[in-house]
Amino acid sequence: MSLNQGVDPRTGEPVGDPVPDTRAEQVRSVAQRAADCAPRLAGLPYAGRGQLLNALATALRQNENELVELADRETALGSPRLPGELARTAAQLDMFADVLRDGAFCEAVIDRPDANAVPPHGDLRRMLVPLGPVAVFAAGNFPFAFSVLGGDTASALAAGCPVVVKAHPGHPGLSERIADLAAGALSEAGAPDGTLSVVHGYEAGPALVTDPSITAVGFTGSTGGGRALYDLAVGRENPIPFYGELGSINPVVVTGSAVDARGREIAEGLAGSFRLGTGQFCTKPGVVFVPADSGFDSQAADAVRPSAPAPMLTARMRDAFQSGVAALSEVPGVRELVKAEPLDADGHDVLPAVLAVDAETFASRADALAGECFGPVTVLVEYRDTDSLHRALRTVPGSLTGSLHAEPGDPTAGDIVGVLRESVGRIIVNGWPTGVAVTWSQHHGGPWPATTDPLHTSVGATAIRRFLRPVTYQDVPDELLPEELRDGNPLGIPRRVDGVPA
Amino acid sequence: MSLNQGVDPRTGEPVGDPVPDTRAEQVRSVAQRAADCAPRLAGLPYAGRGQLLNALATALRQNENELVELADRETALGSPRLPGELARTAAQLDMFADVLRDGAFCEAVIDRPDANAVPPHGDLRRMLVPLGPVAVFAAGNFPFAFSVLGGDTASALAAGCPVVVKAHPGHPGLSERIADLAAGALSEAGAPDGTLSVVHGYEAGPALVTDPSITAVGFTGSTGGGRALYDLAVGRENPIPFYGELGSINPVVVTGSAVDARGREIAEGLAGSFRLGTGQFCTKPGVVFVPADSGFDSQAADAVRPSAPAPMLTARMRDAFQSGVAALSEVPGVRELVKAEPLDADGHDVLPAVLAVDAETFASRADALAGECFGPVTVLVEYRDTDSLHRALRTVPGSLTGSLHAEPGDPTAGDIVGVLRESVGRIIVNGWPTGVAVTWSQHHGGPWPATTDPLHTSVGATAIRRFLRPVTYQDVPDELLPEELRDGNPLGIPRRVDGVPA
Repeated sequence: MSLNQGVDPRTGEPVGDPVPDTRAEQVRSVAQRAADCAPRLAGLPYAGRGQLLNALATALRQNENELVELADRETALGSPRLPGELARTAAQLDMFADVLRDGAFCEAVIDRPDANAVPPHGDLRRMLVPLGPVAVFAAGNFPFAFSVLGGDTASALAAGCPVVVKAHPGHPGLSERIADLAAGALSEAGAPDGTLSVVHGYEAGPALVTDPSITAVGFTGSTGGGRALYDLAVGRENPIPFYGELGSINPVVVTGSAVDARGREIAEGLAGSFRLGTGQFCTKPGVVFVPADSGFDSQAADAVRPSAPAPMLTARMRDAFQSGVAALSEVPGVRELVKAEPLDADGHDVLPAVLAVDAETFASRADALAGECFGPVTVLVEYRDTDSLHRALRTVPGSLTGSLHAEPGDPTAGDIVGVLRESVGRIIVNGWPTGVAVTWSQHHGGPWPATTDPLHTSVGATAIRRFLRPVTYQDVPDELLPEELRDGNPLGIPRRVDGVPA
Repeated sequence: MSLNQGVDPRTGEPVGDPVPDTRAEQVRSVAQRAADCAPRLAGLPYAGRGQLLNALATALRQNENELVELADRETALGSPRLPGELARTAAQLDMFADVLRDGAFCEAVIDRPDANAVPPHGDLRRMLVPLGPVAVFAAGNFPFAFSVLGGDTASALAAGCPVVVKAHPGHPGLSERIADLAAGALSEAGAPDGTLSVVHGYEAGPALVTDPSITAVGFTGSTGGGRALYDLAVGRENPIPFYGELGSINPVVVTGSAVDARGREIAEGLAGSFRLGTGQFCTKPGVVFVPADSGFDSQAADAVRPSAPAPMLTARMRDAFQSGVAALSEVPGVRELVKAEPLDADGHDVLPAVLAVDAETFASRADALAGECFGPVTVLVEYRDTDSLHRALRTVPGSLTGSLHAEPGDPTAGDIVGVLRESVGRIIVNGWPTGVAVTWSQHHGGPWPATTDPLHTSVGATAIRRFLRPVTYQDVPDELLPEELRDGNPLGIPRRVDGVPA
């Protein structure tokens, strides 16, 4: 393919002008430009970097109507979702400006000389510095929040790293338009040329990950695609960090006490959550552990039926969903509570599916049942006792989230939270995992295959840390130190001095 | 090889009883035992975990004479080095107990519900939790500080992760003895069985890295060996973090002002630093940029000659050193200022070497001249001006350290520090990189090939972070939260609440 063509998911018809592929040699020069500007970007004061982020947020807000319309034509995600996502993406850029103003992110630590230490030491001062040019792979399901100006880009720029975005082929027109707006806003705000670029096409991805100028990669997408790029990143002569968010099935546990007290309400919440955005959330609840013979299966089926058809982002995703649901349904022991009949239409419309299976079968066939199936499908796993619940829960692979519905005082709740914690990055009680707040405390990550690196998050203030590395200065005179580490603390940032906060 | 036999480097004769290899199936059961005890270890209060570390430190100190003697027979590192290293290793264990008592390491962050946030959010609370069982590969050159109870083990245990150490074949007897002492100390201090194990032999390494129970790896050793194990870790079906410290050549820059003011003193400092421990330091200054025609070459040669022979740790390291020096010397343009004549002896003795080359040749032959050569050799790179210095310096691969010798007010110093910072983890002014303090601010890491992950350190308080991952609790009732995140802050640890330290 040499052109990237936006397609209207509602009709299957092309929309907007096709965007040409970026050839490998062009990727090389784009990455080189990023490398050339890296020292200037890194050299901007934190406040200046914060102004770049604020300027990008303003550009999004000032062009909201045009951008939402463009996004809707290429993704059919509609309103209120798209305006909400744009607002969240702008707020995320502003949050990283706040993180810069706060200054704690650079982790300044000072140990003054100590002749009595074992071993004795001189003057040691540590802080975090930018890694260098970062490649960001945009996702298809969040055309604002995980795309050109999404969380990976915002956190990398905040860290002082130039960014080259590989656009998602699902919304090439929107990606180009945002790239244009961003270029204008950055230039006006004083960013060096090369701070942010966008490339397109299948050839561009591997070229970017293997480019000698690129020092880290942020990725959001499928397990297969992410693994292939991860393998390239770690297979380089000089391996680089690859922060990939891949597949997640986001287990939910409903206890007997919760079904008894509010089964119907939980079923309705589930129906809303797994169908949100046509089930195209990385935090979609894909597997729900419920007490057997509790009637929750009928409650869930009732809450989902009747469902209107809704379009998936691309024809490929629609086909993968249909074959994924078929594969799940064919596993012996799986019941189809709500069947996702394929639709005879030109667009990418699908209908939701609800499946059910007993906990023992789930545990023994986790290979077939515990993988992510992108789209509006969820699997109820029916357990007879706590032991079989825990056993089945432990076969769930690493996930971004794990949720528990339980009544106050439920004696089984503590152990379930403990088991969930072994394999997830966020634990939700009496709520749903879809919807990811952007805060200081957010963690959007988890053990493989939820991510390629369980230490890191792609959402929240600490996402910046992926693109920073520590440097320690030993016996360096004040005038040669960065301001963050000078004696007088001219930046007024939080520091740890001689072991205590100062 | 089915036995690991200690050898006296001074004579080449075997010492102590041979230690049998751990077969792959034994590794599997050792790792399983670690996994089985992981929840209990993770569940110990921080103070309890700290007591385990203090108990290990005490075990080292109480058996100092025996351990130093054992270590000396297998490594010939002698006194004061070995008693000093033991003291530092014990102090390192105690430091991580302090890190636990401090509590900031768990990074507790709380954001209370905010209906006005974009998007609005509920109650979110983040902290770090243990990753799970960790494999540690001991180094040969630090039989205490980077071995069974070294920094990787101390930081992993502090994080609440059980450890399986792959012993270094250079000191099998010492490794076994320390394993015995540690087992007793841990058991007495209340650690669960399986908290710390030691395995031996070449088969055990790959078996450990690919074991399904192992969740992360700490490694200190050669670039070749480290790369092979790194490839296994990232090639797993579920890749795991691999924290490897590999090769580093630790550039030193000496400015004209410094040579003029104290060339002889610097030459003597260099002679001490690159020969320390027979040049077997990962922070050994391997390349020294000096002004051409400044007379520093003679000063360096004078400071090194005459040198007494000193033993390397193993016969293999001695042979690699001799062939490495020969390969460096054969590069056209390289002058031998001090020649390392091979010795005709039964032990592992070698003599030091000092080589010199001009900066242009170095920059164009960095492939041959800028790799680590373990042992007492250093290369002077003679530069004619600042431009050629910077060009040559930029060809130096990622290193643990970079050093600058300059007089106060030297106008070239700032730019040199800037160039060094691009590729090193620690910058030293008017000092030497050998000798690594154990503090809150220490960073012992750097870009590839110094380490496999530039974000992390293997020395200093933040080494603990390699073995922790974040978890966020959303709307979780106080009674189901870990103590770190409860409303009343029962542990009294530093936290960030609603964006500000509390």
